Amino acid sequence: MHETKIRVQYYETDRMGVVHHSNYIRYFETGRTEFIRSRGISYADIEAGGVLMPIISAECRYFHPACYDELLTIRTKISEEITARICFAYEIYNESAQLVCTGSTALAFVDAATRRPVRPPEAVARLLRGTANGAIAYLSTKQAPANS
Amino acid sequence: MHETKIRVQYYETDRMGVVHHSNYIRYFETGRTEFIRSRGISYADIEAGGVLMPIISAECRYFHPACYDELLTIRTKISEEITARICFAYEIYNESAQLVCTGSTALAFVDAATRRPVRPPEAVARLLRGTANGAIAYLSTKQAPANS
Amino acid sequence: MHETKIRVQYYETDRMGVVHHSNYIRYFETGRTEFIRSRGISYADIEAGGVLMPIISAECRYFHPACYDELLTIRTKISEEITARICFAYEIYNESAQLVCTGSTALAFVDAATRRPVRPPEAVARLLRGTANGAIAYLSTKQAPANS
Amino acid sequence: MHETKIRVQYYETDRMGVVHHSNYIRYFETGRTEFIRSRGISYADIEAGGVLMPIISAECRYFHPACYDELLTIRTKISEEITARICFAYEIYNESAQLVCTGSTALAFVDAATRRPVRPPEAVARLLRGTANGAIAYLSTKQAPANS
Repeated sequence: MHETKIRVQYYETDRMGVVHHSNYIRYFETGRTEFIRSRGISYADIEAGGVLMPIISAECRYFHPACYDELLTIRTKISEEITARICFAYEIYNESAQLVCTGSTALAFVDAATRRPVRPPEAVARLLRGTANGAIAYLSTKQAPANS
Repeated sequence: MHETKIRVQYYETDRMGVVHHSNYIRYFETGRTEFIRSRGISYADIEAGGVLMPIISAECRYFHPACYDELLTIRTKISEEITARICFAYEIYNESAQLVCTGSTALAFVDAATRRPVRPPEAVARLLRGTANGAIAYLSTKQAPANS
Repeated sequence: MHETKIRVQYYETDRMGVVHHSNYIRYFETGRTEFIRSRGISYADIEAGGVLMPIISAECRYFHPACYDELLTIRTKISEEITARICFAYEIYNESAQLVCTGSTALAFVDAATRRPVRPPEAVARLLRGTANGAIAYLSTKQAPANS
Repeated sequence: MHETKIRVQYYETDRMGVVHHSNYIRYFETGRTEFIRSRGISYADIEAGGVLMPIISAECRYFHPACYDELLTIRTKISEEITARICFAYEIYNESAQLVCTGSTALAFVDAATRRPVRPPEAVARLLRGTANGAIAYLSTKQAPANS
């Protein structure tokens, strides 16, 4: 499972003294972004390739509040087979290894020009699945025949 | 069902050109806050009374993107019997009456000093249920015997 | 001086118990947006017309903290002659008429396609100056000869 | 000059395709927080010691837009003698070493209980000035006589 660390910022806390619940949805995005990068492509590159990945659903369960200046660990994985959509699951832990929250998001693949659903480019799907080996595979599948 | 209107702000959009998905969780909070106010008490008053209402779960389904400067309608209701927790359901519509998203949140009642779960004060619960009539009932239940 | 009211949201407070200082910059944007709308055009329309107005400088002086659920009044005016840029000044007051903060922003006019500085369309500049009378003037200046 | 790196998040961009101007004020906070930590104390520790540091003024000049996923460098320094207030100056650069923006903030020292202005604890002031050597000095000045 992929791990990213983030530091809780002051502006993310609220007057209850803890992180405002909406910010965990943003932490999930950071976890997802770094997960994707770890697979050999950045989300910025996917967009540059003409594919957007808008969120179609998100949920979060809150177990323990995170506090200012804590160094949190976001654990991210793909939770379902990638089809016309991709599902991520998240767990966030604090420095004492307490479970702060869990969550999941489903994202669609959408053509940047038409905003209509598309299949993910096969090279991108392979990278995300972890069955291709980073940037080299990305290039080689581009040149590969249609049976890829 | 209670309705609140909010105007989409520029800082709530992202480079996809639409409202960033995390902001709907914040819109739900605005809907919930105004729902509570419409029942004759403000959430600020509930906190001033020593009870916090932290979120224990949240979820959102996205159907149609909201755009900059749109005037959105947030429809809010209580979706379950109030117990040691309270559940709200939300629907957000744009000016063309398109469904933008739906969602729900569950909140606990917590003692502000100890941060431990508590039952909601009966006067507060009655107001939230809509079975009491605003501020007057709030005062009278305070003076009422324990069978309230 | 134009006035807009906004309600402080929970997610805008921080663990100091008051509004996080970065949010006043966002309140200024709301004040500016509603000021522009009051002159007979929306900022969304200006962008739709191919002109963006990015911020080139911003400053804020903080006098009194704003608190959760307060209904703030943002007072906005244009503080300098409109040239290739436009300067706004702001004052924010709480419900007790205490001065919360003052600030100013300078914005450029930029061509949306080239992102290069441009003069504001004369019809837009007139509306912003308040020397034209809303949407009617906007239409008539469009048809007017170049000496407008 | 102290340097911190931050990655631009998707939710920090707006529909102009670049970072929303309000977020640089938040980046300054991150720069300031990491600057303070580099001097041997965390801002969280200063608050735990009973002293808050609210912002009394902030300003920012924008030169070049920052984009999604860019790794920005925040350069932070103390720009004036520390008195009853402390002033920080910031410069943010992108990966191409282009100057994105500059800014400054002034912060007061305030007693957490009374919210009234106070002198910074001498041990804290020394650490911030860089004339003490981290946590060890912090302890020793605590034991030092009043002429410290």
